[in-house]
Amino acid sequence: MPVDGVCNIQMKSNNFILKGDILQSGKSGAIESRGGGYLVCAEGKSAGVFPGIPEEYASFPLFDYSGKLIIPGLTDLHAHAPQFAFRATGMDLELLDWLETRAFPEEAKYGDGVYARRAYGFLVERLKRGPNTRIVLFATIHVPATLLLMDMLEESGLVCLVGKVNMDRNSPDYLCEKSAAASLDATREWLAANRGARGSGNVMPILTPRFIPSCSDELMRGLSEIQKEYGLPVQSHLSENRKEIEWVRELCPSSSCYGGAYDDFGLFGNGAPTIMAHCVWPEEREIELLAKRGVYIAHCPQSNANLSSGIAPVRKFLERGLSAGLGSDIAGGVHSSIFRAMTDAIQVSKLRRALLGESGAAVSLEEAFYLGTRGGGEFFGTASRVANNASGGKAAGFGAAGSFDSGYDFDALVIDDAELAAPFELSPRDRLERVIYLSEDRHIMTKFVRGRRIF
Amino acid sequence: MPVDGVCNIQMKSNNFILKGDILQSGKSGAIESRGGGYLVCAEGKSAGVFPGIPEEYASFPLFDYSGKLIIPGLTDLHAHAPQFAFRATGMDLELLDWLETRAFPEEAKYGDGVYARRAYGFLVERLKRGPNTRIVLFATIHVPATLLLMDMLEESGLVCLVGKVNMDRNSPDYLCEKSAAASLDATREWLAANRGARGSGNVMPILTPRFIPSCSDELMRGLSEIQKEYGLPVQSHLSENRKEIEWVRELCPSSSCYGGAYDDFGLFGNGAPTIMAHCVWPEEREIELLAKRGVYIAHCPQSNANLSSGIAPVRKFLERGLSAGLGSDIAGGVHSSIFRAMTDAIQVSKLRRALLGESGAAVSLEEAFYLGTRGGGEFFGTASRVANNASGGKAAGFGAAGSFDSGYDFDALVIDDAELAAPFELSPRDRLERVIYLSEDRHIMTKFVRGRRIF
Repeated sequence: MPVDGVCNIQMKSNNFILKGDILQSGKSGAIESRGGGYLVCAEGKSAGVFPGIPEEYASFPLFDYSGKLIIPGLTDLHAHAPQFAFRATGMDLELLDWLETRAFPEEAKYGDGVYARRAYGFLVERLKRGPNTRIVLFATIHVPATLLLMDMLEESGLVCLVGKVNMDRNSPDYLCEKSAAASLDATREWLAANRGARGSGNVMPILTPRFIPSCSDELMRGLSEIQKEYGLPVQSHLSENRKEIEWVRELCPSSSCYGGAYDDFGLFGNGAPTIMAHCVWPEEREIELLAKRGVYIAHCPQSNANLSSGIAPVRKFLERGLSAGLGSDIAGGVHSSIFRAMTDAIQVSKLRRALLGESGAAVSLEEAFYLGTRGGGEFFGTASRVANNASGGKAAGFGAAGSFDSGYDFDALVIDDAELAAPFELSPRDRLERVIYLSEDRHIMTKFVRGRRIF
Repeated sequence: MPVDGVCNIQMKSNNFILKGDILQSGKSGAIESRGGGYLVCAEGKSAGVFPGIPEEYASFPLFDYSGKLIIPGLTDLHAHAPQFAFRATGMDLELLDWLETRAFPEEAKYGDGVYARRAYGFLVERLKRGPNTRIVLFATIHVPATLLLMDMLEESGLVCLVGKVNMDRNSPDYLCEKSAAASLDATREWLAANRGARGSGNVMPILTPRFIPSCSDELMRGLSEIQKEYGLPVQSHLSENRKEIEWVRELCPSSSCYGGAYDDFGLFGNGAPTIMAHCVWPEEREIELLAKRGVYIAHCPQSNANLSSGIAPVRKFLERGLSAGLGSDIAGGVHSSIFRAMTDAIQVSKLRRALLGESGAAVSLEEAFYLGTRGGGEFFGTASRVANNASGGKAAGFGAAGSFDSGYDFDALVIDDAELAAPFELSPRDRLERVIYLSEDRHIMTKFVRGRRIF
C-alpha cells in the first residue's frame, strides 16, 4: 500500500504491521536497526521486528512506510503542565524571581476552570503533535483543573501520569494549601474522582509533593499514608540547586541528605515507583540511596542550564546502574520534545568534562537515545503494576514503552527524514542522529500510542 | 493592503514601507520595540522606524504586516560551507577523529565541481529559508568550487563573505595544498576571478588561512602580502581548545600568544577587518591584543559544546568592549540559525557561572539579541569599506546591518508568531524571547536583504 494512501485510513484494530527502516535502543544500549523491516503490533503491544512477515501475523494489515524511519515513542519523565503557557519567556530571571513572577502567578490561574481548559488546550495540542508518547506531569494544587487535564490527555490518546501538586508551606498565599489536612483532603478527593472514572486507563494519578521545602512534615507523613493505601507512584524534585539543598538541610537536619528526607517520610521508592527530577548535585550517600531504593532520575539538562542549576553527573548515574530517563521540565526547559533533551544531555555532558576536567566519556548518542526511549519508558511498566492497585479495579491500560521488543507497549513514531537528506547516503545511525538533532514536529508523519494512531 | 495579498507581490523598487510590531537591539543594548510601527526602506537602506508615515515617504508603497513581528536579519559570523552536508552526524567523535573521518574527507569532495554544485545546493537552499541574512563562510581549498559557491550565494540574494581556504601543512595529503607558493597562486587566481566579475556585490572574498597549525610561515607571510595588496578582510580560528593552543605555542614559540602568532604575520586586524572564531580559552594578553587590533570574535557556543571545547568568557568580552557576534560554526555546530546560537550563548554562559562559580551576570536576552543582529552585522560595515578596494573598482554593495537605525542596510525578517501565542497577552519582549527560543524557519513569512525580498 503506498504511503500516501495510509494517512487517511483508520486502523480499525490494533493488530497491524508497519514496514520501514526501524531503529531502537537495544537491551545492550547499542542502536539496533533493520532497514525495510516489519514491526508487528498485536493487541496494542509490540510483537517484535522481523525481516519478513511471520506467518502467524500474515492476516494483519500492512502499512508500508518504506524509506521512512520508525522508532519507539519518547518519554518525558518530568514536566509542569501549567508552565507550558509561559515557556520561553522570562528565562533571564534567576530561579526565585522566576518562580515568584512567572511560575507561581501562572499556576494560580488554574483555580479558574475556564482558563485551565483554554491553557491546557495549548499544551495538549502541542504534546499530541510532538515525538513524546508518554509524559509525567505536575499539574497544580487545584483538583478540578487537574481532573480536567487528565480528561483532556485521555482524549489525546497519550499515556500520562498526572499529579495534583501538594504544597502547604513556603509558598505564596495565593498558591499555598491552607493546611496539611486541607492538602490531604484535596488529594483524597482527587484520587476518589480517579477511581474507575476515566477512559482507557491511559492517564493515571501520581502522588506529587512539590518538594521538601514546600511540604510540611505533617503533609509528607499524610502523603506517605495515602501512597501506601493507594499504592501510588510518586514524583518530586531532588537536589536541583545548591541553595535548595542547603535549605533542605536546615528544614530536615536529622536526614542523611536531601533524598534521605523523602526517605524518612517513606516517599523515596522502596515499592513505590518514584521519579526524582534533576539530581544535579547529589552527594555520594544520595546516589547510594537512589540506587538502593530504585528511584528513577529525570535528567532535565535544558532546565538545569536555563535556571543556572548546573550539569547533573549522568555518567556517574549510568556507571552506577541507576534508573534514569529524560525530562523537558517545561517551563524550566522551553522545549517539550525529548529529542531536544537528548541532544542537550549530550552537549552539557561534554561541557561538564571540558570545564571540570572530568575523566570518563561524555554521554553518547546511544545513551541519550536509550534514556529518552527505553530508560524513561520502563518507568511505565513499574508504575502500571502499582497503578492497577490504585485504581480500585480500573486497571492502568499501559505497560513499559520505549522498545519494540516483544511485550512492550506499541508506542511508535514514523518520521519522514527526506528533508534532512545529505548529498550522499547516510547510515541508519547517521539518519537517526540527524533526526535527533535536527527534526521538527512536522517531520513526524504519524504517531502510535499503545497501538492507537494519534494523528 | 492585507497581509495575504502581500506574498505574491513583487516589490519593483527597494523603496517601500513595512507596517508591523518592530523590535531591534538599540544602541544602548536595550530592546527597542514599536507596536504597529512603520519601517521605511529607501534605496535598500533603512530610513528608520516611525509611529506614522513621514511625509517624505508618503509615496512609498506600504505593506501591512500588522500583528507580525519585524526584526533585523541575523548575522552568522562563522560557518564552514562544505561541512553543512554532514552536519548532525558523528557528533560523538572527538575533534581530531571528527576532522579525520568526517570534515576532511567531505571537504576533499569539493574538488569535484559536480558534487560541489549538488552539495552547496542543499546549503544555499537552507540559508535562504532561515533567519540569517549575512553569513561569513569558509569554503575549501578549491578555487572553482569556491567561485561556484559565491555565484550560488549571489543568486540567493544573501550577503556573504566567502573564503577560499589556505592550508599547506599538518593536513591530510588529499586536502593539503602542495606548497605555500601553490596556495598563494591559487589564492591570487581566486581573487582575480572576483575582480569585477560578480553580480550585485553581495558576495565578496575574505582571506581565510585555516588556522596557524595548517599554514606554514611562508604561506602566512604571503597571505599577509595579499591582504595588504587587495585590502581584504580576514577570518580564521583562535584559541578553540587547549591542545590546539599548546600546539600553536610549539609552532610559534616566539609569539606572545596564539593571537600574537597571527599578529606577527600581520594577519590580526590593524586595518584589516578580521574575524577570529571561538576564543574559548584566551589568555589575558590575547584579550588585550583582540581589543587593541579591533578583531571581531565569532562566539560559537554550540560548536564549542559539541566538540567539547568549553565555554568562551563572553561576559569578559562584553565588559572589555570587544567586537563580537555569533557563529553557527556549521558543522561543529549543527544548527545554521543564529536564533539557536543566541539561546545557546545564554544557556552556556549560565552553565559557566554555575560550574566555575564565576561572578558577573550571565549573557542576557538583550545581549544575545545584540550579538546576533547588530554585533555581527557591524562587521559588514567595516568589511565593505575594505572590500571596495579589493574589488578593483567593483564596489561591495553592502554596508553594516543588524539595525533599523537610519543608514543601515535594510535586512529584515517578518515573523508570524501566532503559533507561539500564549493564553494571555505577551509583552513585545516576551514575544521576541519566544521567537528566539522556539521559532522555526517556517515562521518566517518573508525576508529582506538590502531591501530585496528573498522569499
